[in-house]
Amino acid sequence: MVNVPSIELNDGNKMPQVGFGLWKVENKDCADIVYNAIKTGYRLFDGACDYGNEVEAGQGVARAIKDGLVKREDLFLVSKLWNSFHDPEQVEPILKKQLADWGLDYFDLYIIHFPVALKYVAPEVRYPPGWFVDGDSKVEHSSASLESTWHAFEAVKAKGLAKSIGISNYTGALLLDLFTYAKVKPATLQIEHHPYLVQPNLLKLAKKHNIAITGYSSFGPQSFVDGDMALAKDIPLLFDHPVIKKAADAHGKTTAQVLLRWATQRGLAVIPKSSSQGRLEQNLDVTDFDLSQSEIDEISGLDKNLRFNAPLNWGIDIELFS
Amino acid sequence: MVNVPSIELNDGNKMPQVGFGLWKVENKDCADIVYNAIKTGYRLFDGACDYGNEVEAGQGVARAIKDGLVKREDLFLVSKLWNSFHDPEQVEPILKKQLADWGLDYFDLYIIHFPVALKYVAPEVRYPPGWFVDGDSKVEHSSASLESTWHAFEAVKAKGLAKSIGISNYTGALLLDLFTYAKVKPATLQIEHHPYLVQPNLLKLAKKHNIAITGYSSFGPQSFVDGDMALAKDIPLLFDHPVIKKAADAHGKTTAQVLLRWATQRGLAVIPKSSSQGRLEQNLDVTDFDLSQSEIDEISGLDKNLRFNAPLNWGIDIELFS
Repeated sequence: MVNVPSIELNDGNKMPQVGFGLWKVENKDCADIVYNAIKTGYRLFDGACDYGNEVEAGQGVARAIKDGLVKREDLFLVSKLWNSFHDPEQVEPILKKQLADWGLDYFDLYIIHFPVALKYVAPEVRYPPGWFVDGDSKVEHSSASLESTWHAFEAVKAKGLAKSIGISNYTGALLLDLFTYAKVKPATLQIEHHPYLVQPNLLKLAKKHNIAITGYSSFGPQSFVDGDMALAKDIPLLFDHPVIKKAADAHGKTTAQVLLRWATQRGLAVIPKSSSQGRLEQNLDVTDFDLSQSEIDEISGLDKNLRFNAPLNWGIDIELFS
Repeated sequence: MVNVPSIELNDGNKMPQVGFGLWKVENKDCADIVYNAIKTGYRLFDGACDYGNEVEAGQGVARAIKDGLVKREDLFLVSKLWNSFHDPEQVEPILKKQLADWGLDYFDLYIIHFPVALKYVAPEVRYPPGWFVDGDSKVEHSSASLESTWHAFEAVKAKGLAKSIGISNYTGALLLDLFTYAKVKPATLQIEHHPYLVQPNLLKLAKKHNIAITGYSSFGPQSFVDGDMALAKDIPLLFDHPVIKKAADAHGKTTAQVLLRWATQRGLAVIPKSSSQGRLEQNLDVTDFDLSQSEIDEISGLDKNLRFNAPLNWGIDIELFS
């Protein structure tokens, strides 16, 4: 089985550098996929309220533990606070609901999913609630500041409900503001990261503050073509890109492995998903070969500062990234 | 004399849509330039602690008032809080020093210059203090949150020291966070804005919240070529750009006037500077001709999401914009 390196977080906890991302994993398959991924060697699972599959992910985990494949402490289970639960008094209750959905006592890492506070929707009304207060098209904001939400995160960490706490989709200026009020620094920052969105300056900033970065959408447009996003259809898929193919051929690896290795060699953790056993194994095997510096530079040179996962690209009237 | 339209701000105050920007106006010339600009018809002057010329700008204003060219209430005088004065207890003292430098009782608009809080440097030690705590190369941050600084702004507005308060160089996510805690919404947002940095989404967000936008560096690379920035030298100057030239020829205007008109037709205020009398007059005359929608669209189509005025581009290790 592949030996996945760990990243030591700034709070002393250790996070596997390669994990499995649960975004878009269908409910009917989720438990089996998680079980099978554990069997394949995955130890980190990156979930979220918004993915709508935490119950099933937890079932897969429970079965793997019951069957003796792993113990709880071998796993690094991640979940995220959805935008509509930013009100500080909602953080602990929804975290506990998410833990109950998974069948867990704690998350290894709990993350603010997006830096925007939306109006609370009770889980009894709609869960997961999505972006719109009415389930349709209307965005309503909450008056919870990011600071107030972060302090609620510090409180759930103190209670042991989350061993580490982090953020996602934050930009440089938001991080600098966070540093002014955080009593506990975020352990990790999760961002969209692929050769069309290289973000060298944000990586430097995180490194300077000893914040580990997890890159999502490592394959670039792929996830968004599937989601029917026009922006993603206008650009060559990275799986077919000659620069990526050349490196893949040179190392006898797949283009997916090259994309993941490019990220892990930049020091990031990655969280690909796959439903095929072959790719599941390949995606985990992305830390034991080395791209040359010139290959890394050539891949980084594909940067277009092109972000797919912005709310506006999904037709949601929330401007976060400019 | 040109009749410059006003923008009604969300606090009821009125701001001229065209003004004079004091960035890089040399001390020896500043009083005369301000005096002459008032004589030419300028009513808005956009200053800042960091420009280092507030004393001289105030001298120009005082002379114009003394000579009966204008009354104080005819003018709209803007200044900005520098990064090293973000600590809430420093806001009122430094604002009062800036007012004293100008010889004024109030500013019409006082703005947070950048969304980053740096360590306090006493005016007796160095003024203006610049980006570096030691005057050389070391950035040190303060622990003042943007929220705490904004509340201090609300307090100086309540005291009448600033009739309106605003922000500069904020991005979408920072604005959304600001809206959660602001008791007084910013009246204006000042941003870099030119055909290489069109920012349609940020404009929409500001409009939705009735925040007026002032665009700076309307001529794009020009100001930064002068400042010896490599990034700005790698791209065609907008003054020479065929798309801008074509529109200028079609309307019998200068390319500078087209660039300013493109901005004012998008609803922005602009703050060009010039030391030549001819251009001073031309720059003020940018609201009485209309570009066609196709001209506006063609100019907006030059967008490269290319930002010059980011600290990192000046060699300052502060990542604000990604």
